Amino acid sequence: MPTDAPFSAAEYAGRLARTRARMAEAGLDLLLLSDPCNIYYLSGYDGWSFYTPQLLVVAHDRPPVWFGREMDVFGVRTTSSLRSQDVVGYPDRLVQSPPDHPFDELAPLLADMGQGGARIGVEKDSYYLTAGGLERLAGRLPSATIIDASRLVNWVRFVKSPAEIALMRQAGELLAKSMTAAFEAIAPGVRESDVVAAIYAAQISGTDAFGGLYTSSPAFVMSGPRIATPHLPWTDAPLVRGGQVNLELMGNRRRYQVTMGRTVVLGEPSRELRRLEAIVCEAIEAVLAFAKPGVACEEVELVLRGVLKRNGIEKTSRCGYSLGIAYPPTGGELTASFRAGDKTVLEVGSTMHFLPAIWSADESLIISEPFVVTATGAECLADVPRRLIVR
Amino acid sequence: MPTDAPFSAAEYAGRLARTRARMAEAGLDLLLLSDPCNIYYLSGYDGWSFYTPQLLVVAHDRPPVWFGREMDVFGVRTTSSLRSQDVVGYPDRLVQSPPDHPFDELAPLLADMGQGGARIGVEKDSYYLTAGGLERLAGRLPSATIIDASRLVNWVRFVKSPAEIALMRQAGELLAKSMTAAFEAIAPGVRESDVVAAIYAAQISGTDAFGGLYTSSPAFVMSGPRIATPHLPWTDAPLVRGGQVNLELMGNRRRYQVTMGRTVVLGEPSRELRRLEAIVCEAIEAVLAFAKPGVACEEVELVLRGVLKRNGIEKTSRCGYSLGIAYPPTGGELTASFRAGDKTVLEVGSTMHFLPAIWSADESLIISEPFVVTATGAECLADVPRRLIVR
Repeated sequence: MPTDAPFSAAEYAGRLARTRARMAEAGLDLLLLSDPCNIYYLSGYDGWSFYTPQLLVVAHDRPPVWFGREMDVFGVRTTSSLRSQDVVGYPDRLVQSPPDHPFDELAPLLADMGQGGARIGVEKDSYYLTAGGLERLAGRLPSATIIDASRLVNWVRFVKSPAEIALMRQAGELLAKSMTAAFEAIAPGVRESDVVAAIYAAQISGTDAFGGLYTSSPAFVMSGPRIATPHLPWTDAPLVRGGQVNLELMGNRRRYQVTMGRTVVLGEPSRELRRLEAIVCEAIEAVLAFAKPGVACEEVELVLRGVLKRNGIEKTSRCGYSLGIAYPPTGGELTASFRAGDKTVLEVGSTMHFLPAIWSADESLIISEPFVVTATGAECLADVPRRLIVR
Repeated sequence: MPTDAPFSAAEYAGRLARTRARMAEAGLDLLLLSDPCNIYYLSGYDGWSFYTPQLLVVAHDRPPVWFGREMDVFGVRTTSSLRSQDVVGYPDRLVQSPPDHPFDELAPLLADMGQGGARIGVEKDSYYLTAGGLERLAGRLPSATIIDASRLVNWVRFVKSPAEIALMRQAGELLAKSMTAAFEAIAPGVRESDVVAAIYAAQISGTDAFGGLYTSSPAFVMSGPRIATPHLPWTDAPLVRGGQVNLELMGNRRRYQVTMGRTVVLGEPSRELRRLEAIVCEAIEAVLAFAKPGVACEEVELVLRGVLKRNGIEKTSRCGYSLGIAYPPTGGELTASFRAGDKTVLEVGSTMHFLPAIWSADESLIISEPFVVTATGAECLADVPRRLIVR
């Protein structure tokens, strides 16, 4: 264990035990993890090495094994909780070099572990296990049974420990720093890109006590006609008096990430925007008062839908998701969502992003809150004024 | 076509024609693109919407069709070269909501296009087509033949047009800004995270004429024991007098990206580091003098290997790759590499990153150069002092 590891050996052991229990329930002998969030969760290894094939091999009867590119072995050995002999590299000639593939070296490794005919869980929905990679691996392990175990560890991650929540709160501080920087930078004539520069600098520079890491997604900063859509990149066009800026920003502390949205208006908000502000803030207050252990995610969505319906607004997209460890391309844990039909029950230590964004034909408004579920209710994870920001 | 499109309609038409010619060679009726680089290349659509299933459908007999999440339809329609009716959204209830999957709606769309029994090329090695997604799609199209067409469009992208090279040069300006900011920020006692904050701010704020976009990878800024490894995140530890910082930074202009590495020393460099500096700079000069149209990538690697061998150094990892459009998680085009056995021939308009990084047991040094191949040779894409930076 490196001296600056964010979690104790006991915490890693607990995570592994919970993972193995779910493996047993699913009838898995072996689990091959490709999602870097899950690899980090179980091993503490945080490296940008997932763009070449990389897996954490989890068995019942031996410590986890990392398999990845040779040049990353030293980084894994010096920063993870894994044993040195359990960090295995493949040579660089196999990298992005078809028809060769790194998994040609993984298959004999698994066979040596006695797992050549195992029931092997893989993450078929992970971004970093490609269809071609899985095909290759399955072809080299003809006696194995390949089973989809997508999100198995994501669900283990759903409830956070006190140490994790402490990091989420620090991420919330970083997020608040970047929001404040955005509010201060936004003014008529300032280019979107200069606002974004201030956001990134504030999030990464952080506080006197700690800095931030890269986030899972870019800062979403949209003005002009782009306020009507959520995922376009910023431009270098100057902001316009009377215009609006929609922000969705993140803070990231040792890969634990908190997300929040706010709308900024440069001038007097329209009456309709003020009306939407009141509705959305009412919904957030209602949800924060309602959320607690035992409440189902679909019930949270119903609270929002009720407030919106009373005000003549219909919203069909989901209105939130679980937060935690995040790598590109997404800050969501891909497990619980606030939407109709999601019966996931909130627990003490669930961390959620409630995002009641309104995209109507004429107006859009984003005011959202990340929160943690406590024994008695819900607590916000970042301290940012909850209102339309007027500049 | 939006008014600020970076390329003419004729340029998009040429890209599509070259893609279709390669589809015909490969015997493909249809091509489903999931790599956001390839989608951007052919359609001009640049959105962070690839974290949910999204495809560009390329047929021979009709304009390309974008298939993705409903909330992103407006963004595609207003920023791409696609026709409005060719932008098709699926509802939010299908997002991250197993057992449902967005591709359940794609299959009938393809059938309606008369392609239900087609020979369909897919990108099996793309990060954003998951194994599960492909399995689902193939299951819904039982009469189709699924063929791996990974990198088909990547290879079309290998030679850049003058308009693309102009953007690469602008990316080089952004890169130079961020390198300068790093050199100025690096000093004993300054936290790594504060150096990184200056890097991001400089790259994004850019020049008076234009700003930068998010890069495909985080800034790699490593000091202390971490200089021995390439992909760990920065920390918030202060830099130490006598220490070393390895930088690998990027500039990104409208998704065209240029990458460069430099090593900074805080104090007097060791004799060994000075020796490595001389060797690496000699190799870069030799490669820049050698590279020209008609030269094969493996020959470039041989030039480096020769210089290193004369100096008693052996390097087994590849020493460069093709640059161009970049989204997370990688800045490489996944096509040509400078390494033994790569017979790709450089052409006028190839843009490459020559990266002769040295990772020896005791010392590491990164000095690299991105360059474009011209009719007469090679030109650097960013103007940064090519030497060990001493602070």
